[in-house]
Amino acid sequence: MNAQVERDILKRYPNAVVIGAGVIGASWTALFLAHGVAVTVNDPREDVEGIVEDYIRKATPTLKALGLPAKDLTKRLRFEADLGRAVDGADLIQENGPERIEFKQDLWASIDGKVGAHALLLSSSSARTATEQSLKMAKSAGRLLVGHPFNPPHLIPLVEVVPGERTEPGAIEDAVAFYAALGKVPRIVRKEMQGFVANRLQRAIFRECCYLVLKGVVTVDELDDIVTSSIGLRWAADGPFRSFHLGGGPGGFTAFFKQFSPGLETAWKNMAPVSLDAEAQKTIIDQAQASFAASPPEQLEAERDARQIAIIQALAALKGRTAKPKQ
Amino acid sequence: MNAQVERDILKRYPNAVVIGAGVIGASWTALFLAHGVAVTVNDPREDVEGIVEDYIRKATPTLKALGLPAKDLTKRLRFEADLGRAVDGADLIQENGPERIEFKQDLWASIDGKVGAHALLLSSSSARTATEQSLKMAKSAGRLLVGHPFNPPHLIPLVEVVPGERTEPGAIEDAVAFYAALGKVPRIVRKEMQGFVANRLQRAIFRECCYLVLKGVVTVDELDDIVTSSIGLRWAADGPFRSFHLGGGPGGFTAFFKQFSPGLETAWKNMAPVSLDAEAQKTIIDQAQASFAASPPEQLEAERDARQIAIIQALAALKGRTAKPKQ
Repeated sequence: MNAQVERDILKRYPNAVVIGAGVIGASWTALFLAHGVAVTVNDPREDVEGIVEDYIRKATPTLKALGLPAKDLTKRLRFEADLGRAVDGADLIQENGPERIEFKQDLWASIDGKVGAHALLLSSSSARTATEQSLKMAKSAGRLLVGHPFNPPHLIPLVEVVPGERTEPGAIEDAVAFYAALGKVPRIVRKEMQGFVANRLQRAIFRECCYLVLKGVVTVDELDDIVTSSIGLRWAADGPFRSFHLGGGPGGFTAFFKQFSPGLETAWKNMAPVSLDAEAQKTIIDQAQASFAASPPEQLEAERDARQIAIIQALAALKGRTAKPKQ
Repeated sequence: MNAQVERDILKRYPNAVVIGAGVIGASWTALFLAHGVAVTVNDPREDVEGIVEDYIRKATPTLKALGLPAKDLTKRLRFEADLGRAVDGADLIQENGPERIEFKQDLWASIDGKVGAHALLLSSSSARTATEQSLKMAKSAGRLLVGHPFNPPHLIPLVEVVPGERTEPGAIEDAVAFYAALGKVPRIVRKEMQGFVANRLQRAIFRECCYLVLKGVVTVDELDDIVTSSIGLRWAADGPFRSFHLGGGPGGFTAFFKQFSPGLETAWKNMAPVSLDAEAQKTIIDQAQASFAASPPEQLEAERDARQIAIIQALAALKGRTAKPKQ
């Protein structure tokens, strides 16, 4: 997307409301502000201002590293605990409330018809579909959809855009354009599958991770090293399908399936059950404690984010050099 | 590992024999040579010299990018089609022959007792365990083990070191030290599981990838984008266990399991079957063709490797800056 198109899209959505300012909401707030989108935070907590401002301060070096303007971020930030006043004049709402369906249904019902027809109603939910969330809406259900980020949204590019049964095509288009203008990688998930896509993939691989650790094949730390030094590195560069397309040689997936599909099908049919009973949990918890607990989570997170930023920067620089954009 | 220790280890293994010079064998050859290890290639093909020299030429920019000396690489390279003459005086053998068990058993039987007691007998096999491979050996089985690389070995760090039932502890230690001295990330796989670790993880996630595409939730291209912009990026930085340890917040895996284990167990128990029948294969092949076939595989591979090199360099630079080595 070129800069002009990006500016035009953001001009249509100058005023965002972030509902619920936990880590996800605070991170969206930082990202919106860095792109010049004004943010009204709606969160009933008394100390919400300090929490969000503190989060933005901590996120600022990351935003800078991603090439975003990070000066005077809080100039366009305001707080409004009253929902009606908060959403008055809003162009876009990004909801990050509790995952209780009643909460979300009541929230959207009370916003229903109170925003402009162009406004986008987006939920960060990882668990509640737009279809369910919209059940008490009469007017604005066509503009409601899930925009589920990978954590933290101001750093990790993916947004899963998951329309509900009542979402209008124009709203999907607008949501994709808006997120893309923020430098995100929005991808449409065409069915409201439980867990959407990324979390389902995590779940699938984590099952095998637990199996191998519980069988004593490797420790949690060794398994992590195996992933970061092989498939993690590979999948940061190329996804599984592109990787296996190349794994098939000049014959691509035709050759790949000819060689590997019998083995894959056999393996998939014979997966041993994996239980996370108390004993299994203890094995993993103990190993994780031994491997990771020496450093406080804040330090591990900072180290992780530094690595993630380094990777994003390296790939962006390469894209610039080769002028062969992957996305 | 410091440079002195590395040199000392490589001094014990100055002469390697690479048996079978397909892409894996040729890639090992390039890496060994770049670390000053002399290589004798044993491969019956008439045109093997041209193939290997061509591979080394193409791998040279990558070796340079990884900070390795890449001048006069072929000075210490020779070719010897006779197995007996090739292994005479060898300190280390890296086998990359066909995955037929008879081939490997006969090969090791004919080498058995013909190499020094210190020599390492390593198989790149992804499918045949050291225990099976050693069945016809009487003398040197204690020094035989699997050293399974992720492709291509001169670029991707992982080596799965998989000892067999007869492998001596000293051989495991020597293999790990040797691979580490080459800048690899060797990790010991403690049980001879079919597929070892990395391929089992690939299989597990690929099952869900196919499921989501066959259900029409996303296309192969969209799924790849979802992976590269979220979990791929994450797992190049941190493995799944470290990631979920942080996902649990200050409570680590105890908190993570408390929140997520019921959902995980339910999902794992209710995984729908995935079949790669002719129709399913056609769906994936057609989408992969549409997404990837416009560029020749060599170009896609070069682009992938450029991205992988950029990531490895960025993480290495970060490690140098922070002096907080992850491995």
